[in-house]
Amino acid sequence: MFRIAVSSSARAVLSASSSLSHSAASVRAFSSARLAMTSYRVEKDTMGELQVPTDKYWGAQTQRSLMNFDIGGEAERMPYPVIKAFAIIKKAAAKVNAKTGLDAKVADAIVQAADEVIAGKHKDHFPLVVWQTGSGTQTNMNVNEVLSNRAIEILGGELGSKKPVHPNDHVNNGQSSNDTFPTAMHVSAVIEINERLIPALEKLHGALAQKSKQFSKLVKIGRTHLQDATPLTLGQEFSGYETQVAFGIERVKATLPHLLNLAQGGTAVGTGINTRIGFAENIAAQIAEDTGLPFKTAPNKFEALAAHDAIVEASGALNTLAASLNKIANDIRLLGSGPRCGLGEIRLPENEPGSSIMPGKVNPTQCEAMTMVCAQVMGNNVAITVAGAQGHFELNVFKPVMIRNLLHSIRILADACTSFTDKCVVDIQANEQRIAAILKESLMLVTALNSKLGYDNAAAAAKKAHKEGTTLKEATTSLGLLTEEEFDRYVRPEEMISPK
Amino acid sequence: MFRIAVSSSARAVLSASSSLSHSAASVRAFSSARLAMTSYRVEKDTMGELQVPTDKYWGAQTQRSLMNFDIGGEAERMPYPVIKAFAIIKKAAAKVNAKTGLDAKVADAIVQAADEVIAGKHKDHFPLVVWQTGSGTQTNMNVNEVLSNRAIEILGGELGSKKPVHPNDHVNNGQSSNDTFPTAMHVSAVIEINERLIPALEKLHGALAQKSKQFSKLVKIGRTHLQDATPLTLGQEFSGYETQVAFGIERVKATLPHLLNLAQGGTAVGTGINTRIGFAENIAAQIAEDTGLPFKTAPNKFEALAAHDAIVEASGALNTLAASLNKIANDIRLLGSGPRCGLGEIRLPENEPGSSIMPGKVNPTQCEAMTMVCAQVMGNNVAITVAGAQGHFELNVFKPVMIRNLLHSIRILADACTSFTDKCVVDIQANEQRIAAILKESLMLVTALNSKLGYDNAAAAAKKAHKEGTTLKEATTSLGLLTEEEFDRYVRPEEMISPK
Amino acid sequence: MFRIAVSSSARAVLSASSSLSHSAASVRAFSSARLAMTSYRVEKDTMGELQVPTDKYWGAQTQRSLMNFDIGGEAERMPYPVIKAFAIIKKAAAKVNAKTGLDAKVADAIVQAADEVIAGKHKDHFPLVVWQTGSGTQTNMNVNEVLSNRAIEILGGELGSKKPVHPNDHVNNGQSSNDTFPTAMHVSAVIEINERLIPALEKLHGALAQKSKQFSKLVKIGRTHLQDATPLTLGQEFSGYETQVAFGIERVKATLPHLLNLAQGGTAVGTGINTRIGFAENIAAQIAEDTGLPFKTAPNKFEALAAHDAIVEASGALNTLAASLNKIANDIRLLGSGPRCGLGEIRLPENEPGSSIMPGKVNPTQCEAMTMVCAQVMGNNVAITVAGAQGHFELNVFKPVMIRNLLHSIRILADACTSFTDKCVVDIQANEQRIAAILKESLMLVTALNSKLGYDNAAAAAKKAHKEGTTLKEATTSLGLLTEEEFDRYVRPEEMISPK
Amino acid sequence: MFRIAVSSSARAVLSASSSLSHSAASVRAFSSARLAMTSYRVEKDTMGELQVPTDKYWGAQTQRSLMNFDIGGEAERMPYPVIKAFAIIKKAAAKVNAKTGLDAKVADAIVQAADEVIAGKHKDHFPLVVWQTGSGTQTNMNVNEVLSNRAIEILGGELGSKKPVHPNDHVNNGQSSNDTFPTAMHVSAVIEINERLIPALEKLHGALAQKSKQFSKLVKIGRTHLQDATPLTLGQEFSGYETQVAFGIERVKATLPHLLNLAQGGTAVGTGINTRIGFAENIAAQIAEDTGLPFKTAPNKFEALAAHDAIVEASGALNTLAASLNKIANDIRLLGSGPRCGLGEIRLPENEPGSSIMPGKVNPTQCEAMTMVCAQVMGNNVAITVAGAQGHFELNVFKPVMIRNLLHSIRILADACTSFTDKCVVDIQANEQRIAAILKESLMLVTALNSKLGYDNAAAAAKKAHKEGTTLKEATTSLGLLTEEEFDRYVRPEEMISPK
Repeated sequence: MFRIAVSSSARAVLSASSSLSHSAASVRAFSSARLAMTSYRVEKDTMGELQVPTDKYWGAQTQRSLMNFDIGGEAERMPYPVIKAFAIIKKAAAKVNAKTGLDAKVADAIVQAADEVIAGKHKDHFPLVVWQTGSGTQTNMNVNEVLSNRAIEILGGELGSKKPVHPNDHVNNGQSSNDTFPTAMHVSAVIEINERLIPALEKLHGALAQKSKQFSKLVKIGRTHLQDATPLTLGQEFSGYETQVAFGIERVKATLPHLLNLAQGGTAVGTGINTRIGFAENIAAQIAEDTGLPFKTAPNKFEALAAHDAIVEASGALNTLAASLNKIANDIRLLGSGPRCGLGEIRLPENEPGSSIMPGKVNPTQCEAMTMVCAQVMGNNVAITVAGAQGHFELNVFKPVMIRNLLHSIRILADACTSFTDKCVVDIQANEQRIAAILKESLMLVTALNSKLGYDNAAAAAKKAHKEGTTLKEATTSLGLLTEEEFDRYVRPEEMISPK
Repeated sequence: MFRIAVSSSARAVLSASSSLSHSAASVRAFSSARLAMTSYRVEKDTMGELQVPTDKYWGAQTQRSLMNFDIGGEAERMPYPVIKAFAIIKKAAAKVNAKTGLDAKVADAIVQAADEVIAGKHKDHFPLVVWQTGSGTQTNMNVNEVLSNRAIEILGGELGSKKPVHPNDHVNNGQSSNDTFPTAMHVSAVIEINERLIPALEKLHGALAQKSKQFSKLVKIGRTHLQDATPLTLGQEFSGYETQVAFGIERVKATLPHLLNLAQGGTAVGTGINTRIGFAENIAAQIAEDTGLPFKTAPNKFEALAAHDAIVEASGALNTLAASLNKIANDIRLLGSGPRCGLGEIRLPENEPGSSIMPGKVNPTQCEAMTMVCAQVMGNNVAITVAGAQGHFELNVFKPVMIRNLLHSIRILADACTSFTDKCVVDIQANEQRIAAILKESLMLVTALNSKLGYDNAAAAAKKAHKEGTTLKEATTSLGLLTEEEFDRYVRPEEMISPK
Repeated sequence: MFRIAVSSSARAVLSASSSLSHSAASVRAFSSARLAMTSYRVEKDTMGELQVPTDKYWGAQTQRSLMNFDIGGEAERMPYPVIKAFAIIKKAAAKVNAKTGLDAKVADAIVQAADEVIAGKHKDHFPLVVWQTGSGTQTNMNVNEVLSNRAIEILGGELGSKKPVHPNDHVNNGQSSNDTFPTAMHVSAVIEINERLIPALEKLHGALAQKSKQFSKLVKIGRTHLQDATPLTLGQEFSGYETQVAFGIERVKATLPHLLNLAQGGTAVGTGINTRIGFAENIAAQIAEDTGLPFKTAPNKFEALAAHDAIVEASGALNTLAASLNKIANDIRLLGSGPRCGLGEIRLPENEPGSSIMPGKVNPTQCEAMTMVCAQVMGNNVAITVAGAQGHFELNVFKPVMIRNLLHSIRILADACTSFTDKCVVDIQANEQRIAAILKESLMLVTALNSKLGYDNAAAAAKKAHKEGTTLKEATTSLGLLTEEEFDRYVRPEEMISPK
Repeated sequence: MFRIAVSSSARAVLSASSSLSHSAASVRAFSSARLAMTSYRVEKDTMGELQVPTDKYWGAQTQRSLMNFDIGGEAERMPYPVIKAFAIIKKAAAKVNAKTGLDAKVADAIVQAADEVIAGKHKDHFPLVVWQTGSGTQTNMNVNEVLSNRAIEILGGELGSKKPVHPNDHVNNGQSSNDTFPTAMHVSAVIEINERLIPALEKLHGALAQKSKQFSKLVKIGRTHLQDATPLTLGQEFSGYETQVAFGIERVKATLPHLLNLAQGGTAVGTGINTRIGFAENIAAQIAEDTGLPFKTAPNKFEALAAHDAIVEASGALNTLAASLNKIANDIRLLGSGPRCGLGEIRLPENEPGSSIMPGKVNPTQCEAMTMVCAQVMGNNVAITVAGAQGHFELNVFKPVMIRNLLHSIRILADACTSFTDKCVVDIQANEQRIAAILKESLMLVTALNSKLGYDNAAAAAKKAHKEGTTLKEATTSLGLLTEEEFDRYVRPEEMISPK
């Protein structure tokens, strides 16, 4: 059953890999070097036999997909969280099936193999790209094939023999790609939101809250329409950001109820044909137990297969987050603009050289990374929406592109929040001197004199200051309206930052 | 103070109206006819005097906006729900202010004027377009001017005199455009969602649920990848749609908590300067009482002025709804395709002539209107997102475009759901004959024979039927695998629609 | 044939109008008042009789659409440029048909009626909304009905009699909605681009070019990453904007070749069934002659009916324009930020009160209107894309939503460009004092000393200035590196604005 | 200068790589294994010293970026075409600089190093992700560092010594990140369009044209609104697709004029400071010569740095293509739906098992991959638009996200077109029997009898057939209107496919 030769199907594999992106350079170089001596085994599916590299666990259907979908190269692989979620599902299925007749040894081997995948052990064995069948069937089969072959290996069998562990009959038992893939979508999304996004947002929220507190006494000029306005504290300004992120966390969490619904048990069209009564509920409970997350079976499986509105909904929350974070990062870089010719109210940490000769030029690179991420998330949301809108009858066949974009948004948002927090927010310093100087220059403080001098006198002072380019204090005193002491007593920005 | 003449500023008005869209044709025609005799009064603001048509309540700042923003014509006017929400706010402000010093007669007149606007009485007096100042200041002033002049009229004063009711000092008392406009955004959005969208969605949901029940026994072919799959009932298919809409209602409602937060009381920059302690809470309570909706004051006013994430969030729910409704409407028109050369499983009501000569050609026009609306809502969501992401410091100045798009999405979704329900869903009929015929032809029923004949025999029968273009029954019997009676006993689609 | 009564179908009309937007307030008020005495005539189509208001030219199919599509109200009417384009087509068709048998008197009457519509005379007679049948059939019939009834009137016949001018047999002769509506899409788009958008862009381009020239000697600080960078002239900065708009004009023009292709002649499915050989070419030539625009018949009519890629393409150019204009308007408001606490390098014209008490606060309202328009155009582009992607077989049935959004984008972009030019760009003034002051403060000028003092000395001077908050000149002289005269001789920003 | 130890900075690297995606599994595993023995050298920049793996050519600034931007992991690396374009630019710069003083040996070594990168040799040395500084400075420095160290190696020097080849002074000579990155954006986009996208589109176009020809005589039912319409040939239907792709190629090519403009020579802010007169033109000419593509220097460098409208424009063309391809792939899967219960007019090639038991179930997986790609491209277009709209003053700092998305769209569109062509289009077969059968059943053929029997008789026949479920022929003959022979003579679908 093993051959050492480069047959035509092997060439297909090689040509498939010829379009791999540069991130795989060393892998490829290694593969090429190894080429002459690569050995293959024969795997088969209902369409016939195919050669598969001996050192890979995947089987014929994976191999076929590699041959048929040479789109985008390695950079376009199905995101790993999907693979991990599949392993979680297969493990749960094996446990549930073991209670209704699946051989315990087989079930245990599947569980062991799945645990290895969950632990990140066999990543090289999941080579398929996102741009495949729209149901994700090929990735489901990839997982079935890898787990069955690995389980066979564990049990001392021969790879490709499908004995004693069959990819369909055992690993995929009671399942269909049509319910398993959407389950993997929800499981991976919830895990990534829970493990990656929420913690990163909470970290950012904490840092903004800390800054808000730190700057709570620092009165500065307000700006509306980018024009000078009445004052507020820098802490109040940051409290707005803090609230945006706090609400953002609420928004993301508000999408979990629908994401926690699992399609598993709907099988091919949502009816649950070929599975047992109770399987849906039991596997959801098992997954919930194994992950510690409150998954439950979806109340309607037809919706769960034919539409992925929960993914669109979750992406909508990320899109809202992107709008929030874009505003925050944009404000921060504008506040930090300068060092001499900008607003200069805050100082950002210098993480890399801004200019080799000019000190103080600190490019707001973390803000830039963050706003780029926001643009991407907004784009991803449109991809998800377009895909989510186009299901047909019992199946939406844009599953891989939808979960790819959702996981992409989660990942880069989470990482960008962490990076932005650690490399920027926590080290933001107020430029108190500058803040005080421009506040003092502002004519908006004239509003404080309204009640003391009457509107007309106050306006006249402001007009004079504006015309002559002096401060309001100079204008007021030179008009003989107030002494300097009176001015300082009446014009107290720190008393202009709340209702009375 | 009144003049009968077409001065240069009057010409500016006329040239402004020269770009009005056709929807205003009769109004314009009337205006033109009236032109020679139009009289004007003088209104003034801090920049000087302006002529305003005698028969309009608006004042100088509205007039200036008309002159400065000749963009898009009448079709682009600020949506009326925003005007109505403003009137609700002004009424509540007058009531609250009356408790802390606003003259009762003035307050009562403002309340009366506001009630008239709420009742839809003075729509012609709000001519400003969306494309104005990004804070919506000009619409706030338009409302202040109209209410004060109308209140002046009620109290027997002279229009334009600002006595005894001043647009700023009285109508706008304790407010700023910067907090009033966002409050109007939230109030109008919640009212429109509550009065228009939710009822329409519930109506659609009810109709789909009724159809799901009506068709609950009707077994039909399932379709995945647009290919024949195992059967389900037409009722199950509709239950998926029903669930999508039910979840959609949940999604819209889940955005209300943030929409119910009101910015009022933040005044110019969020600090609440120039307003009283308690004003924010009191006016929110008053608005809640007047509308019967649980509005409350926003926990952080800086966020409430500088960002409109709640609008982006709400739009995200509508975007998800659009994805759902696009799928549903698309399925329905595909199921109704034909009459002879399509799927033809359902019959849509014939609302208008489809073809003058060919009977049975019923164009799915309600589905088309619905899917067009969905495309629009997806686009509106991007407009809202882009706008929401670009606030600067203490103010997001994309307020009008954001609320325009949100209200547009709410309105057309609501109306389209109502139309789609009334003119399509409730009258959908199953074509039972056709459903039965193609189900019988389907080879997917072979899965039912698996356990009876063994996989190989079953597959052989299917293969024969496929090759020869016969039914599965014919193939099975001609192969001598089963008698007709046995086939009918074993192949029972109605037993293939649930787990066992 | 006339009745004075409010029958059930009349009530349907009334209930249809009950959701009209406020822009129609006076019309509605008038209608209500008039209700008791409104008279109706009977019109019929293949589905039966309907009552139509006596004073309207439309017929049964328009009336049915009003009853079936109560979506969005009057604000959602089919944009007038589409109606006008239809009239242009019907006129051309009458002329072409007159050469092959259409009675000359009938043709002349149609031409006269069409000319009236083109002149904007009968706008009230086109009440249908965008959200109708996706082929736009109902608007085509609306035009056929209005033109035939008006032509009947011209010829002394009875409205509704279809004699001597039949809406289908004569006005729609040789046409189908399926080819006429796409033709109207292209004709209206090209006219609006030609008459409205290009002139507005050229005007803006001219104003920016003039500013670029006016400011060509004014050296200012450059900014990259919002941080101080090497200098350039304000004129150079504006030359970038000028180039963006110049390229934008090229981009819009580059979409015309496909927009100039007309679908007319494809009839129902693209084959041209029921029309004459040569009709397609002749009517395109006639439209070209009548409009003075180089329309021609589409090379493939199947593409022209089933897809509207040319609309997506044109929207893509507008989307690019929106990106350009957003950048320009955003820069201008940032440059004009202040008056005291912003960048303040330019002064924007004061078109309306910015603050009642504080002079110099000029809100960049034209920039705000422009950037709001840009957000809308980006959203519209997504609506168009989603709609354009979803055609089925021989017909894309998202025609109305596509042309609505394209025309909306054209109109608001054009108007916003004109407004932005007239009310902002032409009156932008440089704040030369401020520009010079902050340039002088900038440490980036140190790059000019590199070659004179060596890198290390230059860097040391910059570092000292940065640390001590002094100017570069002060630091350099106090370090004894240069005299003041030498500094002024060496550090000449005006020599730092080009390659050497 | 070399140390064998895991210092804190090395740990930073490791922690950076801990978030690498699974596609890098083997690389990582290898790295881990190697860890104990990894050796490092010291590199430095203006901020100080950093340890860099001995076996990598990159230097301190690359290392810093790795530490500061741990966002998304390896899957998010800057696309290789950008790196390659950078190498092309650096090579051209070395050649141009050699003519004005750059030491020939140094220049030659840089050229040799660049040629190696162009050939794909050092992919592992470009580890930076897209989410970095928005100017792409870090990638520019990565390239400068790798090329200088490799050139140093070629010349026998010590890595990290910056002698005799300095990353800034020599490799980056006359350049700035601010002009080099946009140049790399345009160069990479044009190369990918030219080498990848256009050939793939031409291949698809050719296949569709061939199918159009092959099916040119095959008359079938037309469908509008998804309802039966007058006939056309399957070839005509495919000619629409062919035209869409032909126009798509024109659209992509129409964006090249602006993409061929190169920013190089603008240096830091567009003025060209620190470069020589003529450098811009000479390097563009050199790049044109080296690539064989007609690049030229951008007419305005301020636009070229501060805006990337050309990228937005190009993405707009891809977005239009996505709309086209979505329609085509969607039609094809609908035409191929079945095998028994769908339209079934065409048969798609069976590339993988559709169903293990049911023959003839061929899932349209290539269509699914294609439509998923289209959704992604539409999303990418929004990301690009949002990014393109937000430049500030002299620099747009969304460069990496813009080119990432453009290259992503180009790549997956190109690959999907190739896959779709090879694995689907070329093997599409018409199901002639089915096409004929349903055409015969269609009642739309009644339109052919209009002129023979008169409208009323024809309509009556259609009505009877519709009511009784018989064919039009049966109805016509049973009504005694025509004999069978007459019917066959008059009703000739093949004569209903063109104007007369």
